[in-house]
Amino acid sequence: MITVREKVRFVETDMMGVAHHSNHFRWFEMARVEYLRQAGVLLLDLMAQDIVFPITEVSCQYKASAKFDDWLLIEAKLVDLSRAKMVFGYQIIRESDHTLLATGRTQNVFTDGSGRIIRLPLEYYNKLHVLFTSED
Amino acid sequence: MITVREKVRFVETDMMGVAHHSNHFRWFEMARVEYLRQAGVLLLDLMAQDIVFPITEVSCQYKASAKFDDWLLIEAKLVDLSRAKMVFGYQIIRESDHTLLATGRTQNVFTDGSGRIIRLPLEYYNKLHVLFTSED
Amino acid sequence: MITVREKVRFVETDMMGVAHHSNHFRWFEMARVEYLRQAGVLLLDLMAQDIVFPITEVSCQYKASAKFDDWLLIEAKLVDLSRAKMVFGYQIIRESDHTLLATGRTQNVFTDGSGRIIRLPLEYYNKLHVLFTSED
Amino acid sequence: MITVREKVRFVETDMMGVAHHSNHFRWFEMARVEYLRQAGVLLLDLMAQDIVFPITEVSCQYKASAKFDDWLLIEAKLVDLSRAKMVFGYQIIRESDHTLLATGRTQNVFTDGSGRIIRLPLEYYNKLHVLFTSED
Repeated sequence: MITVREKVRFVETDMMGVAHHSNHFRWFEMARVEYLRQAGVLLLDLMAQDIVFPITEVSCQYKASAKFDDWLLIEAKLVDLSRAKMVFGYQIIRESDHTLLATGRTQNVFTDGSGRIIRLPLEYYNKLHVLFTSED
Repeated sequence: MITVREKVRFVETDMMGVAHHSNHFRWFEMARVEYLRQAGVLLLDLMAQDIVFPITEVSCQYKASAKFDDWLLIEAKLVDLSRAKMVFGYQIIRESDHTLLATGRTQNVFTDGSGRIIRLPLEYYNKLHVLFTSED
Repeated sequence: MITVREKVRFVETDMMGVAHHSNHFRWFEMARVEYLRQAGVLLLDLMAQDIVFPITEVSCQYKASAKFDDWLLIEAKLVDLSRAKMVFGYQIIRESDHTLLATGRTQNVFTDGSGRIIRLPLEYYNKLHVLFTSED
Repeated sequence: MITVREKVRFVETDMMGVAHHSNHFRWFEMARVEYLRQAGVLLLDLMAQDIVFPITEVSCQYKASAKFDDWLLIEAKLVDLSRAKMVFGYQIIRESDHTLLATGRTQNVFTDGSGRIIRLPLEYYNKLHVLFTSED
């Protein structure tokens, strides 16, 4: 599991006075990118090899509102992995009072630039698999 | 069911060359707002009465990429309704070739400004219920 | 001059209850893209020829707030054109009462994919020049 | 002058492969909010007193592209201040190689919730004035 820390931006609020629900997927993405980086899998390297990784499914459950200026802890971990897809699970926690704000899940598949499903090269898969098997 | 028509904006694309997956929830929202308007339920009226309607759950399944300049047809219908919550289901279809790009679902609950769950006043509930019972 | 019509989205509002000022540049962009389309200059065609068109300068003056659900008329016209750059001027007008909400200006230059300044091929320049000279 | 550090998010890129130019105003805002915080002026306090601070003018000059995963240093300083308005100047610098990516400027005025121009209460003005006079 990795954790990234982000502050809720003014632009991320809406007229109900809280962060708009679409932002959570942007926060999840920041944690996912960081997870992959720590595994040694850089998105720019994948793209340079014509490997893309479209999102095919996402979900989020909102428990409490994220507010302007809140510091958020965004936790990501791999919950499923194969050479065809990777599934991450997330929690977003308000740092100040440890309130759980949201949980979520995203699934990426691996394709080439033309959208054809591929198998992730072992060079990358093995790096991710090490982290995956270390998740509880 | 109602349908709104939106064009994919340049700013909505990302460096993979397709619309970022967080935009779909913004498109769903445009269809949801329009559905409510056609039911005679204006969000600004609700807010003026201290009724807010936070999102508590969302999901999306991505079938194909939305691309820059695509015209999208975003269909929304009420799939569950009570005085405590409303659940919408969505489809996003590319107008040019009728490809189904995504399906999704969102749940709102009704609260007062302080976040306490309330029951939607009958004045609004009844308007929505008429449309809900007319959905197939 | 061309005009595009856009509705202010809920997600575009912020906790001050009005559209966030960064959205105006997204609305300008929609009008600019449409202007180019009407000139017969498609961004996807340019990109397919390794021509990119980064923004080098923008400005906006905000006269009144754009509010949720407002219909906006976004007017764009070419105010300067050479084979090295194009400058657009904009007005955003609220449709319901013809209030001028904002004016702005953007400058794009033409480069190849590696960022080197190029001269826009005559095939495209000539199309734009026809429209440019017809602006008052 | 204060500096905030932000990473370019994947969602902030567009299909030209670089950060979309509208993001710079979001980055400026993060630096502006932080500047005000360090002056002891909290936006939530202002809003609780029915003081709002709409943006009336912005500009940005783009020198080089911000790219995915770049760490940005966003510098803000007050360049003009009265009880009617505050003007900030900005620089965005890529941390890795100290390249200047953009410069910009924003002007806020102070109004009440109904949009009427007010004079910023001395309690806040004095705090800002201390920092303003310490800028070179």
